[in-house]
Formats: sequence, structure tokens, C-alpha cells
Amino acid sequence: MVPRVSTSIPHPDFAAERFTRCPDARFQPAPADGVLPDGFFTTTNLPTYVRIGGQWRMPREPRMDGALVLDAQGELWIREGRRVRAGERVVVGLAEDGTEGVYVNTAYLGGGGEGEFKFMTSEVSREKPIDYAQMARVLVDERERGGYPIWVTGPALVHSRARADMTWFIANGFVGALLAGNAVAVHDIEASIFGTTLGMSGTGEATSGGHGLHMRAINKVRAAGSIAKAVEAGVITNGIMHACVVHKVPFVLTGSIRDDGPLPDVVTDNVGGQDAMRRHAVKATMAVLVATALHAIATGNMLPAFVTEKDGSLRELPTICVDSSEFVVSKLKDRGTHQAFGVVTNAQDFMHVLRLYVERELSARVSAAKPA
Amino acid sequence: MVPRVSTSIPHPDFAAERFTRCPDARFQPAPADGVLPDGFFTTTNLPTYVRIGGQWRMPREPRMDGALVLDAQGELWIREGRRVRAGERVVVGLAEDGTEGVYVNTAYLGGGGEGEFKFMTSEVSREKPIDYAQMARVLVDERERGGYPIWVTGPALVHSRARADMTWFIANGFVGALLAGNAVAVHDIEASIFGTTLGMSGTGEATSGGHGLHMRAINKVRAAGSIAKAVEAGVITNGIMHACVVHKVPFVLTGSIRDDGPLPDVVTDNVGGQDAMRRHAVKATMAVLVATALHAIATGNMLPAFVTEKDGSLRELPTICVDSSEFVVSKLKDRGTHQAFGVVTNAQDFMHVLRLYVERELSARVSAAKPA
Amino acid sequence: MVPRVSTSIPHPDFAAERFTRCPDARFQPAPADGVLPDGFFTTTNLPTYVRIGGQWRMPREPRMDGALVLDAQGELWIREGRRVRAGERVVVGLAEDGTEGVYVNTAYLGGGGEGEFKFMTSEVSREKPIDYAQMARVLVDERERGGYPIWVTGPALVHSRARADMTWFIANGFVGALLAGNAVAVHDIEASIFGTTLGMSGTGEATSGGHGLHMRAINKVRAAGSIAKAVEAGVITNGIMHACVVHKVPFVLTGSIRDDGPLPDVVTDNVGGQDAMRRHAVKATMAVLVATALHAIATGNMLPAFVTEKDGSLRELPTICVDSSEFVVSKLKDRGTHQAFGVVTNAQDFMHVLRLYVERELSARVSAAKPA
Amino acid sequence: MVPRVSTSIPHPDFAAERFTRCPDARFQPAPADGVLPDGFFTTTNLPTYVRIGGQWRMPREPRMDGALVLDAQGELWIREGRRVRAGERVVVGLAEDGTEGVYVNTAYLGGGGEGEFKFMTSEVSREKPIDYAQMARVLVDERERGGYPIWVTGPALVHSRARADMTWFIANGFVGALLAGNAVAVHDIEASIFGTTLGMSGTGEATSGGHGLHMRAINKVRAAGSIAKAVEAGVITNGIMHACVVHKVPFVLTGSIRDDGPLPDVVTDNVGGQDAMRRHAVKATMAVLVATALHAIATGNMLPAFVTEKDGSLRELPTICVDSSEFVVSKLKDRGTHQAFGVVTNAQDFMHVLRLYVERELSARVSAAKPA
Repeated sequence: MVPRVSTSIPHPDFAAERFTRCPDARFQPAPADGVLPDGFFTTTNLPTYVRIGGQWRMPREPRMDGALVLDAQGELWIREGRRVRAGERVVVGLAEDGTEGVYVNTAYLGGGGEGEFKFMTSEVSREKPIDYAQMARVLVDERERGGYPIWVTGPALVHSRARADMTWFIANGFVGALLAGNAVAVHDIEASIFGTTLGMSGTGEATSGGHGLHMRAINKVRAAGSIAKAVEAGVITNGIMHACVVHKVPFVLTGSIRDDGPLPDVVTDNVGGQDAMRRHAVKATMAVLVATALHAIATGNMLPAFVTEKDGSLRELPTICVDSSEFVVSKLKDRGTHQAFGVVTNAQDFMHVLRLYVERELSARVSAAKPA
Repeated sequence: MVPRVSTSIPHPDFAAERFTRCPDARFQPAPADGVLPDGFFTTTNLPTYVRIGGQWRMPREPRMDGALVLDAQGELWIREGRRVRAGERVVVGLAEDGTEGVYVNTAYLGGGGEGEFKFMTSEVSREKPIDYAQMARVLVDERERGGYPIWVTGPALVHSRARADMTWFIANGFVGALLAGNAVAVHDIEASIFGTTLGMSGTGEATSGGHGLHMRAINKVRAAGSIAKAVEAGVITNGIMHACVVHKVPFVLTGSIRDDGPLPDVVTDNVGGQDAMRRHAVKATMAVLVATALHAIATGNMLPAFVTEKDGSLRELPTICVDSSEFVVSKLKDRGTHQAFGVVTNAQDFMHVLRLYVERELSARVSAAKPA
Repeated sequence: MVPRVSTSIPHPDFAAERFTRCPDARFQPAPADGVLPDGFFTTTNLPTYVRIGGQWRMPREPRMDGALVLDAQGELWIREGRRVRAGERVVVGLAEDGTEGVYVNTAYLGGGGEGEFKFMTSEVSREKPIDYAQMARVLVDERERGGYPIWVTGPALVHSRARADMTWFIANGFVGALLAGNAVAVHDIEASIFGTTLGMSGTGEATSGGHGLHMRAINKVRAAGSIAKAVEAGVITNGIMHACVVHKVPFVLTGSIRDDGPLPDVVTDNVGGQDAMRRHAVKATMAVLVATALHAIATGNMLPAFVTEKDGSLRELPTICVDSSEFVVSKLKDRGTHQAFGVVTNAQDFMHVLRLYVERELSARVSAAKPA
Repeated sequence: MVPRVSTSIPHPDFAAERFTRCPDARFQPAPADGVLPDGFFTTTNLPTYVRIGGQWRMPREPRMDGALVLDAQGELWIREGRRVRAGERVVVGLAEDGTEGVYVNTAYLGGGGEGEFKFMTSEVSREKPIDYAQMARVLVDERERGGYPIWVTGPALVHSRARADMTWFIANGFVGALLAGNAVAVHDIEASIFGTTLGMSGTGEATSGGHGLHMRAINKVRAAGSIAKAVEAGVITNGIMHACVVHKVPFVLTGSIRDDGPLPDVVTDNVGGQDAMRRHAVKATMAVLVATALHAIATGNMLPAFVTEKDGSLRELPTICVDSSEFVVSKLKDRGTHQAFGVVTNAQDFMHVLRLYVERELSARVSAAKPA
């Protein structure tokens, strides 16, 4: 990984046939100062060779995003477009493999066969567009085929008020099982009973006396005996856990060393907790991991990268991983869950936009299904 | 900032009148194993004193999120709720100022007067809810009152396809002026001409030959002479810059040392660029800073923290700063723009959800304005 | 938190005595174009009033980092230094409270009494210097006084080869107890047995067949029965866990839902694990939390913010929290551990530089103790 | 990039010769409950086939980090080691290509030829070790061969007191040219004149009146006429810019839209600034980019990925990019600077540890050069 002084880059063997049959590069004059001819060749930062009079020559002052310019003295330069003067001869052509007289050496980069200079090749980046429409189609497809999508979520989902949207997904059949930790349920239930999460109001203000509200919520559920009993008793009247109970969506709450309480439903033993999660993981046909490093990696560890269909055929297991930075997704991939598709955004916004697109997809399918 | 061994915390002077008139703490028995009585006192991690028999005593084994328990031997403990046994005596009460027999010492924390132990007090955090409804109201109010909201954006806005939403805000009168760098316009124009940004397709794939497309886009505008002329000539047919030209929303494109091209409209001199930005900043009645550290801080530097109304009265200048991490907002505040309200999310999602809420706010106002 | 349009800022009551006794502002001519007189007043972005001829006036075009300039027409401006011309009259003075004729209104910002415009006020930032010398003094002081510093670490500590430094701190008496998860011990033991961590070599390369090495390391310890027995049997010959066993430093390994194995020493039940951690937390006189969100917050939850000395006096419990982003420290503070001192850096570099400074501090104390 | 439901994974053609000549898998009994036999096969999450009795079978309940277990009924499972009971038959072998009776299908993952399941394959990660010794060797080699290493730095370098270390590198011949922005010089000069950076003291405290100190520093240099003249006049007495002037190391200060002042040496025009930077970039034999997104990418844009030696041979241009998150390095790579080697750490710590290793390397070379 570390740069080594000794990494030499061999010149290509221009006596090879693939090079001897290449033509000379074509030149066209710049139409105005600082304006290049249409179809100008755009340089990269890699070793570049231009065929002129049958000879392969390297331009001076190499850089990316420049043009190849032959000056009056016959010297070949890479020059920024703004510095090119009207009438100067500029190489035109798009091919980088020599077939138009310009060869860019990517072979030494490895990666097999024909490397290519490209931008935006990293797998996970906040700079990439998020294709919600495609994710919505996958979710609706899973529901239609009777799949078993597992949702694995962290407390940010509740903390930041994506709670209503998560509840909607549960109530509408998009969740096969919910796997989470104690905190998700604690915050959700605090929100149901007191209208706060960790004592923070719905507009994000720390409230006076608020620091104890999650403990009071836990105490009420402990007094009731379980989350389901607290729902029956009318202690919990809305939200994620309420929806799971009411809609009979199974959930697993596993414990962690930082848990308050915990709630009576929590599997406090980690080995038992893994076994409980695994009973759902082996059935999963899709996974949505939102705002949780711990549970995302736990799930990745126990999830196959593929789904076995009833006919024995295999397909990739769609795995969406949402986090506010690239780190969690990269970490998940670094621990073997290569199939994870990363979405770098805020959990609250993700849930809201995803729901919007799922609603649109549902409407579109209804319309398409209608007779004319 | 660094922890010092010598920071001693004085005990309160319990001979003072405010303490001598306090009552003893009240105790109630725990109703079941691991269940606390209603109204139990929730501990903090700060020095805590409990009045028992007229004496102020400190409990043993202090921690937050515990209960105050008096054992059979008369020893006072802080204990996790789950470890409390049925019948044990537990302090009840909410007040932390001694008036119910429990005093939590926050005075030594400084911050003046009565400190209070609270969760979620940091100003900028991805864990806080985002109040889009309120931001939408502010934006619509500004439009109604004829304000001058300046939008300052980074290239991620275009790169990640929030382009359609930004175009909508411009076309619908929510943008007084757009302040950005060369890259925003380059990516936007590449998208209009080639359908890519930095050679990346709309679904996030690096395209073959794509690395040169932004240079070709720049070259076409340089050939046309300016962005406005390229719009007139039909070279640029949609997007952010197109909307600015068509809707006569002024824009300033300032240069930076990493610019490709640049486009002919860019003010390449930074002093001239600051002067050009400042002409809009002095008129600003609101600022929306999206996905740009450089331009956000540049704007913060030249923006007053307040608006002077025509009648001479002052109000805070609403300043929204959106970035994918807490860092940019904290940095902006650390450089004096204390009024910045931070939103930690992905620019693409922010724009989409904000637009949705603005559309809802507009509909609600239309409905409200209708006669019954 | 959200900006509100309606936040009006009242003008001060300049009839109050504190203002009526203020002098007029003093002016001095700029010595050259773009150069300000010594002692020039530097503006903020807050409402600013300048006393001229007994009247308090607000300058036009407010911004921070500017100068107050009176033009030939008697108009008062805030202007960038570079735009001031030789001879123009510029306000001099440093006071912002009116006593030199300039008043900056910070009262409306709250925060009690006299606010002040300052840069770099955020509590946790990668832009702040790290005072290793002070941390080293605290650590050496703790060792000298027989304190009980608890170290709470995440796997990055081992993964990134800070292992040798952590081992040194254990071997040299700076660690009262080590609290960590299964992964720390697994990676450390993999490094001892196979020379890799998660199959990655010491120079950061993924090795062929390496993905199974952590499982083989776990299996060997399971076969031995415990970490201590594996040390005795010569299976584990160096590293962090080896040092704990050899130097009789107690450790607690708690489980998590993502654990591989786990190792036989791990407390797999979270309630039991919290109790085990708590037995050390109640004795702690200092806490060092490195590269772990989960365990840092778990420890913060159970740690008092203060130490009770044998004589009953109190002092703050020094708490150092190291992470690669501001987020973990802010989160820890948001959950009540206000005393945490944040260090934003890479765990590997932190350990190396801290050890270097501790070694220097030890040398300095030895030298100081020598008779002349 | 988005997961697609339709991605089917074909089964291998087990009639092919490479499979027909494979042996059956070997089994050994587990020596104890929860302990696997030495040399056990560790599973991945990919489609896996085990040859038993000449048939290739897929195990049930696939996951990574498990063992292959044949139960009494002849059913084949993937099972966690802790769940395996003494005497159960477990597959042994390391090969994943079928040659020991187990085949893991990586072919469908693409990436050419034989894919392999590995951990820690991402290119840039804070979890990777940092090989300072190797970087030190490269730097010392460059000095010995008379190379031209360009250093490109952001203000964090000065802000967080890596100033002394940077000064040392300049004074000791490791810097061919320094490329930076106005802010680096402003903070450095503020530190020389006032002992603060942005008004923050050396221990990280915001000082009273400190917000104006950088403006006073700028004003003093403007009055002197240039940085060099301010050094001559004794206004600037130490630090980075002082070292450049005294040791005649060329520097380029380019402007940005957020600059205060600027200092008189700053090239305020961005096109001119790029040309000034480029004059050094074309000579560069190494690049060190520290704590600057803007200048790192600007430099990456204009830097070839290779060095042309005097004899016409080529070698990779060593490019080290240091930032506190993975993002800047990934962004740099996404914009074509593929050769960048990323170091994810705090700039202050990086500089301190790098200097330490360079000093060690120098000592080692001196020792090696001595006659016996």
C-alpha cells in the first residue's frame, strides 16, 4: 500500500504488432484562444504516447484534463485548454488504446487486461446518486413474491423521528422481521409514552427533567412484564414496537453492554441473541441495515451473500446498508459482506424518501394493473 | 480543556438557608423485583446529596440512570433498577435542587446560575431531528415578504442529482441569488449536455470515456462565450444554470485553485470574487448553505448575524447549513457564525425532502386562504 | 434550534447609565492603502454601535473581520482592510463593551451576563491542539498516587498496531484494569499466534487464506480453556492479553452481538458483563477510552463524574476519550459524560505519541529527583 | 450499484474436468464440545460446494466464519464452532478451489480470473496500519537523490501545532516547495507574532480579544510589504514561513474565496495561482498532501502519476495524502489520482510521528555508514 520509490513503470514494446498497425495521431487547429477543436483528446495523468511521423513520443509536462498540443517548433506538450492559442495544433480522438494514434498506459496498474482511466470508481461515496426508485422496486417485488426482508436498525432511526416511516413499513407488510437492540425499543417506547427520545423534544430541544424519561419508560414495561403486555395494557399506544405487536411482525431485541434497563424482551445473553437473530437470517431474502454499525456487522457475519430459491437456483441477496458516513459500509465490506450496497445519508431522510418512492411504485403498479 | 488532576469540587455549604429549609427525602418500597415505584428519582453522575434524618448524605457507588436505595442496614446506594428487590426503600421525587430532599451539585460546572444535568445538549448532531416543516415556513415567509435569500451550494448538490430540486427552487422564486464555484456550474452543464456528472451516469456508474466530458462541456461554453449565450444558443437546455438565466436569478461563480476550465463567467480573482459575493451578502435576509465548506465559511465571514429591517429594527438572519457531517457546521460556528442552524444529512435527500415540505406548506396556505 | 423569522433583537437602552458615561470612539488615519492603523478595532458579525458626537450609530454593511471607517461624507462603514485607502479615518480600540466608544451587542445571545464574540469555542474539534504533555502528567501522577485508571479500548487499537504501545502501558503500571470486548482479545491473540489481524499483514495487505485466522486463534484458546491457560501453555506469547496475564492486570471482556467465537473468558451475558465492568468502574480514579463507541458509552453510563478521595473530598474524574471523529465524544457528552476530554485522532498515533510523552515525563521526574 | 433482484448466480459446471478430478472432502471429529479439529475449513458467505461420495453438495444454513459439519443423519450444515459437539464430523482443509473437496464460488464476482474471499480489501481505511518507517525511507531517499518533493498543506497543520515539525522538515532539506493557501501563512504568522492561532492559545483555549489577532497579523505583513520583508524586519521570527524565507525554500500561496486579508504574497487570481503551482508540480518527484481537500485535489489535477527519470525511464510518483477521514483520499482517487496512498489520522500526530521515524532513519543510515 505504501508508495515505494522503486516502482518502475516499463515503456510498452512499440515493436509489437498491436502498435505497429496504429495510425499517426490527427491534429486540428484550435478555433479561438482558449477554445479547443471539437473531439479534442483529453489527457489523463498516466504515461501517454502519441504517434507522430511513425514515432511514439511522450508529451512534456503531463497532467490530466489537458489537451495535446504540437507547437511551432515541433515540440509536443500537454497544456490546459485555456492556455491554447488560436491555430495551435491539437490532437483529436477519443481512443486511449493507440487506435487513433494515442496510447495511454494503464496496463501496469494491474486489475487485469485492459485498465481504463475513470473518475468516480470508489464503491461507496456520498457523492454518488441514490437510486431510490430501484430500491423501491426491490422492496415491492419482495412483498409481491412473499419474500422475507429483515430490517436491522439502530436507535438513530427513532431518535431522529424516522419512527413514523418505519412504523408504516411494518404496518404495510414490508418487514419480515425486525432485528435491533434494546435502545431502539426504549427510545420508541419513550416516544410513545412521553413524546421524547432521551429527553429530547420533537423539535430537538433538551427538556428539563428529560434525562430520566427513558428510565421511566423502561420501568413501566418492566412493571407490565413485556412489550406485548404493555401494548395490551394501553401503556404503549403507537410506534415501531406497537406496530410489530399489532401486525404480528416478529422482532428480536438483543442486548449490549451499554443498555439501560434492559426491557424484559431483550435477550441479554449474546450467544442466545445471535441464535435468535440467526433464526431470521437463515430465512432472509433481503436485508435492510439502517444506522447501526454493531447490528449491521453482526447481521453481515451470519448472512449468506445469496438466496437459495425453492428450485435450487441462486441469486444475490439484496443488502442495503444506510449510514451517515462511508465508514460503516466499507467496514461491512472489509468483513466480507461484499454484496452490501451503501447509501450514505441521514437515517431520517432515507426513511422518508424511501417511503415516498415505495408509495409511488405502488401507485404505478396499481395503475398499470388497471384495465383500460 | 485537558483534564487536570487538581480540579477539586467543593461540597455545598449545607448550613446555608436554602439547604436548611429542605425536607428529608421521601422513600417508597419497590413494588416487585427489578421494578421501581412510580416517580422514582433518577440519578445523574454528578455529586448527589440525600437528606435523611436531617443529614445530607452521599450515596455509595454513584452512577447515572440509577435509583437511590436505602438498604436494611441504613446504607444508601445508587443502584440499577434491575438490581432492586421488592420492598426495598427507593427515593421518589423529581427535583434536583434539594426541595424534595435530593441535591445534585451542578454549580461547579459553571455556565452560570443553575446548571442542570441534561442529555442531548450539543448544538449540532446527526442524532437530532430535522424540522423540515419549520424550515419550509421560513422559506415561504421569506418569499411572501419579498426577502432576499442567498443560496450557497457545493458541487455535491449537482453530483448527487439534487439538481432537479434546486432548479425547482430557482424557478419558483425561493432564490434571491446563487453563490457557488466553477464546479457547480460545470457539473450542472455536463449533466445538461451529456447526462453525466464527472462522467458518472445517473445510476452512479463510471462511464467509459467519461473522464473527459466535463472538459468538453467547459469547452462548449467557452466557445459560446458565456453561460447565458450557451443557453440562448441551445447548448444548455435545462438545470440550475439554465434556470438562473431564464428566471433572471443573479448568480456569482467564484474561482478556486482546483477549477477545471474555468467557465467564462467565473470571477477568477478571489478579491474580485469576494466583492461580487459581498454585493449579495449585504442584501441577504436569509442564507441556505448546502454541501460546501469553502463557500459556506466564505459567506459566513461576510454575512452579518442579523437583518436590519426597513424600520431600523433588527432580527436574526436565518442561516441553514447542510452537510454530511457535523464538522462543517461546527467549523462555521467556530469561525463566528454562531447563528448557523446545522442539518447533518446528504444534500440530495435534504433538497428532496425540503421541496416536499415547501410544496405542502404552499398547499396549506392556499387552502387556508380560501373562503369557506 | 431551527431559525425562526420572528427572532427580533432589541436595541440596547442607550439612556442607561452604563452607556451615557461612555466616550466617543477614537479615529486614526490609515497609514497606507490597504493598511490599517495599529490598534484598529476588528469587527464581529453582531449588532455594533459606535459613539460619534454623543450619538450611538450603527455602521453600514456589517460583517466580521472588518474595520470601522468614517468616510468623507460622515457615513460610517464596516470595510475590509484591503479596501481602506490611506488617510481614511479608522476606529481604534479593543473594548467591545462601550468603554472605548464601541458597543457590540452580545447580551441577546443568552449564556448569561457578558457574552463575548470568540472563535474556536466548540468543545471537541480536530482543529484543536492535543496537549500530550498534560495527559502524560496526569497518567504519571495517577501511577505515583496509586490510582486506579481504567482503560477501555476498541479493536482498532490492535488492528492498527498500537498493540506494542498498549502492552507497554500495561507492563509499566499505568493500567488499573482493562475493559474491552471479545474482538480486542481475538485480534490481539491472532497477532500473537499468526502475525496478522483479521488476516491483514503488518503492512496492511490482505493475506491469502487470512479470513479464517481469527477463527483458528479463537479455536486454540477454546481448546486451551482460557486466555490465562493459553498463555501458560505457550500458545499466546506476547501482546496485550499476555501482558495482562503476566502482570496480573485484571481485565473484563464483555460480549457483543457481533462476536466471533467467543473466547472462553468473555462474559456473554450483558447484565453480567455490566456488573463485571461496574466492579472496576466504582474504583476508577481515571478513565482512558480509546477507539470504541460502544464501550466508551457503556463506561460513561456507569462512571461517576467525580472521584471521592479518602478524606471525603471530591475531584473531577479525568476522562480522556479518543476517536477518529468528533462524533463519539459529542455522543458521550450528549449522554451525560460532560467531563470527557476529547482527542480526535487515529488510535495508533495517539498511543505512540502518548507513550513518547510519558517516557519524557518519567525521565524529567527522574532528573528532577536527583541530588545536584 | 443498486442491488437487483434478478442477479442470478449460476451453479458451476461440475462435469468440467477441473471438478471431476477433485477428491472428496476430508472429515475429522471435533475434539471437544465447542472446539474444532485443527485445520478446520472456515466458511465464507459465498456459494459453497462440498464433495461427498463423489457428489457436490451445498451445506444448509450458510454463513461466514462457520465450520462444515456432517450430522448423524448425513445432513451437511454450516455451523458456528461453539455449537459443534465433541465427535461431530468437521471438514478440514484450507483450499477453496475444490482441490481439497470444497469449492467456493467466487467466479461470479468478476474481477477477473480467480476471485478470493478476503477481509480488509478496501484501499483506504482508518483500520489499516500506517507504515511510518516506509514513508520515512522514501523521504530520506528523495533527499539523498536530490529529488523535488512538494508539500501541500492545509491550515490544520498550523492550527493544531504541527508547526514545529513542519518547520523542521523545511529546515532539514525535505521540502522542495511548499504549496498552500493564505490561511496556512496567516495562522503561522499569527502564531509567531501573538502565540495564538485564530485567537486560540497553545492549550486550545479561546482567548479574550483573540478573534482579531489574525487580522492584526495580516495588517503587520501588509505594512511590511511582504512575508520576506516582515522576516527581515524581525516582525516574523519563527515558524513555517520564516523557515521558507531563511532556508530559501520556494513557496506558493494561492488565494481562496474565504481568505482574510489576504497577505501580500498571495496570488489572488486562481488562473495565475494554478500556473504558479504548476511550475513546481512539473518538477515534483514526490508529493505529500496534508490536511487539505482543496489543495490536495488541485495538486492531484496537475500532477502526473509518474516521474520521468533523466534516462527516460518512468517510476510511480510517490503521493501521500493525509486526512482525518477516508473521504478526502477517496475523493482524490475518484478524481483520477489513483496512486495516492492514504493515511487517515490527525495532521498534528502524523507530523510528529513521521518526524520521529525520519530521525530514526537518519540515525540508522549514519550508523550503517560508519566504518567498523
